[in-house]
Amino acid sequence: MPLVTVIGDGQLARMMQQAGIELGLTVRLLAGSTGASAAQATADVWLGAYTDEGVVRGVAAGADAVTFDHEHVPNDYLEALIAEGVYVQPQPSALINAQDKLVMRRRMREIGAPVPPFLAVESVEDAAGFWDATDGAVCLKARRGGYDGKGVWFPATRDDLCALVADLLAEGVPLMAEKKVRLVRELSAMVARTPSGEVASWPVVESVQADGICYLAVAPAPAETEGRRRVVDQAYSLARQVADELGVTGVLAVELFETVDEAGQPEIIVNELAMRPHNTGHWTQDGCVTSQFEQHLRAVLDRPLGSTAPVSATTVMANVLGDDTADPEMPMPRRMDEVWRRFPTAKIHLYGKDWRPRRKIGHVNMSLPLGVEATAENVDALRRDARLASDFLVTARWTDA
Amino acid sequence: MPLVTVIGDGQLARMMQQAGIELGLTVRLLAGSTGASAAQATADVWLGAYTDEGVVRGVAAGADAVTFDHEHVPNDYLEALIAEGVYVQPQPSALINAQDKLVMRRRMREIGAPVPPFLAVESVEDAAGFWDATDGAVCLKARRGGYDGKGVWFPATRDDLCALVADLLAEGVPLMAEKKVRLVRELSAMVARTPSGEVASWPVVESVQADGICYLAVAPAPAETEGRRRVVDQAYSLARQVADELGVTGVLAVELFETVDEAGQPEIIVNELAMRPHNTGHWTQDGCVTSQFEQHLRAVLDRPLGSTAPVSATTVMANVLGDDTADPEMPMPRRMDEVWRRFPTAKIHLYGKDWRPRRKIGHVNMSLPLGVEATAENVDALRRDARLASDFLVTARWTDA
Repeated sequence: MPLVTVIGDGQLARMMQQAGIELGLTVRLLAGSTGASAAQATADVWLGAYTDEGVVRGVAAGADAVTFDHEHVPNDYLEALIAEGVYVQPQPSALINAQDKLVMRRRMREIGAPVPPFLAVESVEDAAGFWDATDGAVCLKARRGGYDGKGVWFPATRDDLCALVADLLAEGVPLMAEKKVRLVRELSAMVARTPSGEVASWPVVESVQADGICYLAVAPAPAETEGRRRVVDQAYSLARQVADELGVTGVLAVELFETVDEAGQPEIIVNELAMRPHNTGHWTQDGCVTSQFEQHLRAVLDRPLGSTAPVSATTVMANVLGDDTADPEMPMPRRMDEVWRRFPTAKIHLYGKDWRPRRKIGHVNMSLPLGVEATAENVDALRRDARLASDFLVTARWTDA
Repeated sequence: MPLVTVIGDGQLARMMQQAGIELGLTVRLLAGSTGASAAQATADVWLGAYTDEGVVRGVAAGADAVTFDHEHVPNDYLEALIAEGVYVQPQPSALINAQDKLVMRRRMREIGAPVPPFLAVESVEDAAGFWDATDGAVCLKARRGGYDGKGVWFPATRDDLCALVADLLAEGVPLMAEKKVRLVRELSAMVARTPSGEVASWPVVESVQADGICYLAVAPAPAETEGRRRVVDQAYSLARQVADELGVTGVLAVELFETVDEAGQPEIIVNELAMRPHNTGHWTQDGCVTSQFEQHLRAVLDRPLGSTAPVSATTVMANVLGDDTADPEMPMPRRMDEVWRRFPTAKIHLYGKDWRPRRKIGHVNMSLPLGVEATAENVDALRRDARLASDFLVTARWTDA
């Protein structure tokens, strides 16, 4: 039976391990510690750093495929592995677009994907010029390493921008700037693609963020107007196009902004790409025939993809996010019990992580029951209930009480 | 977070481990070998024999609950653990009814559950008398240890019965006899019950057997006539009654025979009890909000139970059963690929077990799609497709080609 090496030890690797069990696969993990989220749940754990080329080579040896739960393995290690015949998926030529926001923006423009005006920022003058050209509608980004709102800045004044850019460039942070958009909502279009080119798309999802962190995903994304149906269709096709043109393998998430054009009609632009299972795809564990974790394993092994059909008219995923107050006294199992008592259909997924402010420690999926079609009212109620459940898991309080 | 010790290393323990991951539980395993089905997929594995009291005590120490994937741990070990304050679920007082068919039959009769005429067989004379009383409609059973058709005999003549009984009693096998029934089909009614007395019931399932081994389960059991609806309702209520009266904790499967009475009306009788996740409940992994494996873990920890609502109008489970011909040359992953190509909705679950005749090495779940109601035709097609898929995984041939 196949052996898949996963480099990374977070919740994505943990949930790949869970999915691998039923496929009869061995998922081998490169983990930083035995207490890491995925290591707790995996039989075949290697300890070591993904920044150590010898370690990466060792854990990859004999694997039918090598894949990742993050984008941080140096690409030259991966190129070296590929040259030695190791089946690394996705490959660095695709991965670079999930690692470097400037490379990705340029590539998106090349393939005709909608992107905002952007510029490589290599000097304070670049930044000042972009400020003037956009009337101050500037979003400054670190080209690499940002996530969950980190590495993204919205300077209030031209002087703030220039001071910030001077500091960051002095620290050696490669930068880009793009024009701020009038955000209406965020969408996420996810597909899986095999090295042979088979592609399977999930329904497009609405993703709700606060402070740059996703806290809710609604699948499928409500599309109550003709204009919204059009942009959801466009997002669906775009994700497939991106996967094909970039040669992505495994799961791809295309994070999108829905904005309005000058005529007041919805339009979309690409925000980020992720080439691995993604937070906005967690709903597939309970809401789809094939979860993103199973699909990722099948895809990186170049095996046939599973049905992406939903099993419920709507599924809502709510993240369990550490907040800024202290971890409540009520132990987590008792909080889960309270949630299950109030919501017997709540599917709680925990990551084996300790509480920390703004840390994702789990998520809750809730679906409409069999035979119930989605309406504005019942989807709103589902969003509210999933949020109540995830909030309770953090605070031990019902936020509607 | 809670620690659950599971004694046993087969596929049921493997699937409990899988379910435990998302609940944030640690599932600790007592396994016979590192290559055992569940041990392959578990981080916290203790090696040893469940027949060694010291080993059982060691692996139970510190657990929030101790449970099982089989019924073979000596009850006196369990009684000793309970006396020491260990939370063993289910308890021996309930378990005895899943271990000893004669004890179970007597208890069923006591609580008014339908059972066939039966007799303890302690001598050849007992057996001969029962033959005469039933006009030769005798099923002889070992009181303990039988499964998948083992430990059950249907002697053709009175002399065969007497010879068989003489041999078995000489070997020290405790026996009982019961009247053979006119089997129409088999049903399975499953519930979970917590030590606090909360009970949650899944829909009753039709279970299809060959040579004493289940190969198909259809959920819910088709009930196309008034009489069948009546017996399905009766089975549903009976499982709850059995769980309550016997004080079962965790998952209980009540295996039932559907027969016809003298007026030609369907009726049911109890065949066997199992007090753990059960083959006829594997469909819940893909067909229900809460799988039997998650529910068992929640139940033995005395935590609130999850919704048992189906997510599809019908789900069919087909076992992947080693047949009598050789393991085909095509490797299992290629067989899976062929099945996925033909049936993208097929959910394949493998146990990490080598092929052996009549051995259960996996199962396939297939469900009706969202929005499709069950009809005689589409349920038949689903049965056929699930069977084709599971047969292909065994033989590498399409049995309809």
